[in-house]
Amino acid sequence: MSNVLEDIAAVAAAGEERRAANAIRALAMDAVEKAKSGHPGMPMGMADVATVLFKEVMTFDASAPDWPNRDRFVLSAGHGSMLLYALLYLLGYPGVVIEDLKSFRQFGAKTPGHPEYGHTIGVETTTGPLGQGLATAVGFAIAERLQAARFSDDLVDHRTYVLAGDGCLMEGVSHEAIDLAGHLRLGRLIVLWDDNGISIDGPTTLSTSTDQLARFSASGWHVQRVDGHAPQEIAAALAAAQQDARPSLIACRSVIGYGAPGKQGKESVHGAPLGETEIELARAELGWPYAPFEVPEEVLADWRAAGARGREARLAWEQRLAASPKRAEFETFLSGDIASEIAAPLAALRAKFASEMPKIATRKSSETTLAVVNEATSRTIGGSADLTHSNFTITKGLGSVTAEDFSGRYIHYGVREHGMAAAMNGVALHGGFVPYGGTFLVFSDYARGAMRLSALMNQRVVYVMTHDSIGLGEDGPTHQPIEHLASLRAMPNLNVFRPADAIETAECWEIALTTRRTPSVLSLSRQNLATLERPISENLSARGAYVLREPSSGRQVTLIATGSEVEIALAAADLLWTRGVRAAVVSMPCWELFEAQSAAYRNRVLGSTPRVAVEAASRFGWDRWLGDRGEFVGMSGFGASAPAGTLYRHFGVTAENVAAAAETLLRA
Amino acid sequence: MSNVLEDIAAVAAAGEERRAANAIRALAMDAVEKAKSGHPGMPMGMADVATVLFKEVMTFDASAPDWPNRDRFVLSAGHGSMLLYALLYLLGYPGVVIEDLKSFRQFGAKTPGHPEYGHTIGVETTTGPLGQGLATAVGFAIAERLQAARFSDDLVDHRTYVLAGDGCLMEGVSHEAIDLAGHLRLGRLIVLWDDNGISIDGPTTLSTSTDQLARFSASGWHVQRVDGHAPQEIAAALAAAQQDARPSLIACRSVIGYGAPGKQGKESVHGAPLGETEIELARAELGWPYAPFEVPEEVLADWRAAGARGREARLAWEQRLAASPKRAEFETFLSGDIASEIAAPLAALRAKFASEMPKIATRKSSETTLAVVNEATSRTIGGSADLTHSNFTITKGLGSVTAEDFSGRYIHYGVREHGMAAAMNGVALHGGFVPYGGTFLVFSDYARGAMRLSALMNQRVVYVMTHDSIGLGEDGPTHQPIEHLASLRAMPNLNVFRPADAIETAECWEIALTTRRTPSVLSLSRQNLATLERPISENLSARGAYVLREPSSGRQVTLIATGSEVEIALAAADLLWTRGVRAAVVSMPCWELFEAQSAAYRNRVLGSTPRVAVEAASRFGWDRWLGDRGEFVGMSGFGASAPAGTLYRHFGVTAENVAAAAETLLRA
Repeated sequence: MSNVLEDIAAVAAAGEERRAANAIRALAMDAVEKAKSGHPGMPMGMADVATVLFKEVMTFDASAPDWPNRDRFVLSAGHGSMLLYALLYLLGYPGVVIEDLKSFRQFGAKTPGHPEYGHTIGVETTTGPLGQGLATAVGFAIAERLQAARFSDDLVDHRTYVLAGDGCLMEGVSHEAIDLAGHLRLGRLIVLWDDNGISIDGPTTLSTSTDQLARFSASGWHVQRVDGHAPQEIAAALAAAQQDARPSLIACRSVIGYGAPGKQGKESVHGAPLGETEIELARAELGWPYAPFEVPEEVLADWRAAGARGREARLAWEQRLAASPKRAEFETFLSGDIASEIAAPLAALRAKFASEMPKIATRKSSETTLAVVNEATSRTIGGSADLTHSNFTITKGLGSVTAEDFSGRYIHYGVREHGMAAAMNGVALHGGFVPYGGTFLVFSDYARGAMRLSALMNQRVVYVMTHDSIGLGEDGPTHQPIEHLASLRAMPNLNVFRPADAIETAECWEIALTTRRTPSVLSLSRQNLATLERPISENLSARGAYVLREPSSGRQVTLIATGSEVEIALAAADLLWTRGVRAAVVSMPCWELFEAQSAAYRNRVLGSTPRVAVEAASRFGWDRWLGDRGEFVGMSGFGASAPAGTLYRHFGVTAENVAAAAETLLRA
Repeated sequence: MSNVLEDIAAVAAAGEERRAANAIRALAMDAVEKAKSGHPGMPMGMADVATVLFKEVMTFDASAPDWPNRDRFVLSAGHGSMLLYALLYLLGYPGVVIEDLKSFRQFGAKTPGHPEYGHTIGVETTTGPLGQGLATAVGFAIAERLQAARFSDDLVDHRTYVLAGDGCLMEGVSHEAIDLAGHLRLGRLIVLWDDNGISIDGPTTLSTSTDQLARFSASGWHVQRVDGHAPQEIAAALAAAQQDARPSLIACRSVIGYGAPGKQGKESVHGAPLGETEIELARAELGWPYAPFEVPEEVLADWRAAGARGREARLAWEQRLAASPKRAEFETFLSGDIASEIAAPLAALRAKFASEMPKIATRKSSETTLAVVNEATSRTIGGSADLTHSNFTITKGLGSVTAEDFSGRYIHYGVREHGMAAAMNGVALHGGFVPYGGTFLVFSDYARGAMRLSALMNQRVVYVMTHDSIGLGEDGPTHQPIEHLASLRAMPNLNVFRPADAIETAECWEIALTTRRTPSVLSLSRQNLATLERPISENLSARGAYVLREPSSGRQVTLIATGSEVEIALAAADLLWTRGVRAAVVSMPCWELFEAQSAAYRNRVLGSTPRVAVEAASRFGWDRWLGDRGEFVGMSGFGASAPAGTLYRHFGVTAENVAAAAETLLRA
């Protein structure tokens, strides 16, 4: 008899679970239909998985979306955004109401086409470009362990869940992410793969034959396969995943667009509204006789209860925090404030540079600066894409982060520029830490997908990009950036710094580390550069550009340069002086900051005389600063393999050519 | 007795093989030492593998490096370039002499830091950025099968060999490449992995734990492991790889810097000269008592014989070709000439567009153009990174390329923008075919590493990049390109086309397809655009920019636009006309081609009156065309999720704003 009752209870529970999932399905198809665009397929296909995850497994409190120890959820298949928005509404996230779902994909709504961090509460990271969510989640999982190593597992022990699609697993960045995650044994990372066998072009058999379970297993992951529409299987797999010390992949075999009888299982359900007729059929199929956007009270109440399920855990955590001797430290850590820690040491370093006037590469003065920074604060997390001793990104005592020990502060990201950038996004988003990572500037090409998300998400991530011109010499054109400065300067909300000497390097680092809502690129030289004579009372780099040399009797021409070419501009000014021409020299370490100055300041710096700019890179973009009488000395094509000095001469990036350009302009 | 003789012969052969390999080692360490920079570790570590491959296995004829059916060799670990240069010299490639090795990494030498296609005979593709060689080789292997399907296995049946390092296998693009290769069962692709356990930062155990054999196996590869210093094992594995129908990975466990007793097996031998002392020790260790760059006569003779080993095969092939009914067709195919095939049909298409004046998206007119092109020629090979029905890249009758059937002309590249670009490089390099492939413009970020190599290698690859602005609408900022036009225009030797209507689309396609030494990006709209009234007697897009509308009574202001914003400029001109202002309108579909025009033409088009440019993208770079009195209407930050019309209005990319900017300039 008790068995019968249990069976009845189980059936009722299953029915409740199914109705909870159908609420997601209905909201997704209704919102996409109303918006006349969007992706119903994934939310409908993965609704059962999401229901188990959010109603039974994840630890979170919808009323406290900023709880530091909440489990993170990353919708790597970001086009399925209605899954997430439906959940946020159903679970009762503050301020997410049914009207938000009705304005899906409309201007200013909380429900944009793809989830946007900082725009919608409960969205942990911006996703949409495939693979990024998965790779960013690796950063979350790393940050969680880094925090735990500092503040104990008592305060930090959450999990990171990812919902990824076929596309996420096809993208190259997925390889970089899972290799790194397996290597670091990120056991609290659990990936739910929407294994629906459909991509936009049609069945995935059009383009892939990879056995994903074997692939993840090869990288040290725990792997399982479940029926994505069988709640008990899903729950059991999640429990097993939680128990395993390795990161976990759960392949959820699902039917895309589940519940839409005429379209489910086909690519046509992926990214377009179902249409009124099909929606009617789906309502019948799902046993969901409600009006569009209507969720029956008991279903909503059930979901809201799930949203409050983690309240006790959260309150208990808050008590643990209150009682912890690390409380103050933890709160300071989460504040993200680094400025007060590094200001004095960096001021001292600038004074030291000004006094000692070293002639060293800016990648080297960057190392010296990092040594000071990393000593002054514990929140920097360094790393390199396997170019540590070329980028000079490691400093004494940082310690390597390993699977066994997360107390270190240096991550060997491997030859994985893209994965590194995405992981740094995750580390930054997770809070408290300031990640920086190195590679050659030319390989920013590999990392742009994630760099753009740093900018779009307003994250303080610092890209240390050395070997920043033909000055790297013999490695040749594949390694010599030409267009990279321009292509990065073109990106919104990214500060591109190209310091000219040790002092500017320290200055630019300080700006990069203290600019909270903008990522930075530090473009650094391989070759040695003399320290420039200039005042250090002010961080002049913060102005973006400044007059480094002004002829006392007034300028006739202005020479503008960045980074390693500032010394060429100075030499050109010397040359011009011997020929009776008075040239001012402007160092311009950061275009973006200079653009933000007042017009009066900009005009004062640039002057009204003819201008010559010199940069060992593409001219592209320089016309912005050349005025109506300007010339540019730099590169007009790819580089070549030869010693740096030979290349500068061959390509004409010389003081003589700068001086000649100035004289030509003055004669004109 | 005969056994003893056989043993003696075997020992002698082994000794000979070892000396042959040591010639590579010695040349590599000598050249790096003389250059004072370079990478001796890989050439010394993989010399034994390379010796077996080139002396016993590969089919080629050093005296005929352009033989179409030669086996291809791709040094994906391009930093080990001295391995390849030593081989080219030892095998007797025409014009590669010992002096070339002595001038390793010097300006103008045939022996640059990384192998450069088109610069050094025998170099099949430019490598250095890790993973690119492997991914390009997939394109070679695809092209080989495509050719075989057209001209029979009698004429085309070569193999593609890749030497890849740990870094190549860590890069994300490697995943895209091996997944695609496994899926297409490219059985003639054989990858030799230099499994030396060392990367630049130190042991690979710092950053990876992936079981590469299991990983490749999961993607449908045949996998083997050998001792990279045991010639018989290597030869046996290569024989087995040749027999297997799947692509093959051979993990060659090797000692980096093999033969340098004090440094071998350590990261310090990877990328720096050994130094005189270590070189002396290495000579002793290797039993190589010769002067720097000296190769004993019998060793050189032995290598030269290997270089001539394939002569008979090549001559036999030439006889087969001569006797083949497909000879003329094959030779025409290899010529790469497409212009004569498509000129007339495209002229007719332009006339049709001019007569019918369709109002369609440029991605749609691109599809119409492709239908004509793909009908007129058989050398185009289309594809998309899983956005076929958004990019509109497939046309009737192309047929999908599958593992079973390579007679088709359409490749489902999967969600693999980077792998697609690299594979297209391989297809183009292989000769004859003209590859094009589609994705959204914003995802050019994922493909830049390979796109840069298209440009650097002067390859005719066409990137079809649709959804090229906020005009894509609801998908939001992750999918809306802002900086991408600028960042691509900044790249040397890349033509970026942004056609304004159907006619320009056909024109730009014609230029892209017939420009032999420059890759192209076609930036295409999602939204519909009216056909512009203009003469079609000339391909005006070939001028880069042209006057679309000129007020008969002389212009007061010039409005410049590209792509979807040309119709906004025209509307602005209409508005201005009603307000008594005479505006000329310039369409500028290709900056690069306009830059290449005479100054007189450029001045005529741009005029001397104030200028307003409008483009729904970053201003970056536009100052080049604005002159001293110019204004820009476009984007100053990221986009947003909303219908396209709403976004254009919100961001102010409107005819009203263009007109207002013009009036402000005229009042100034």
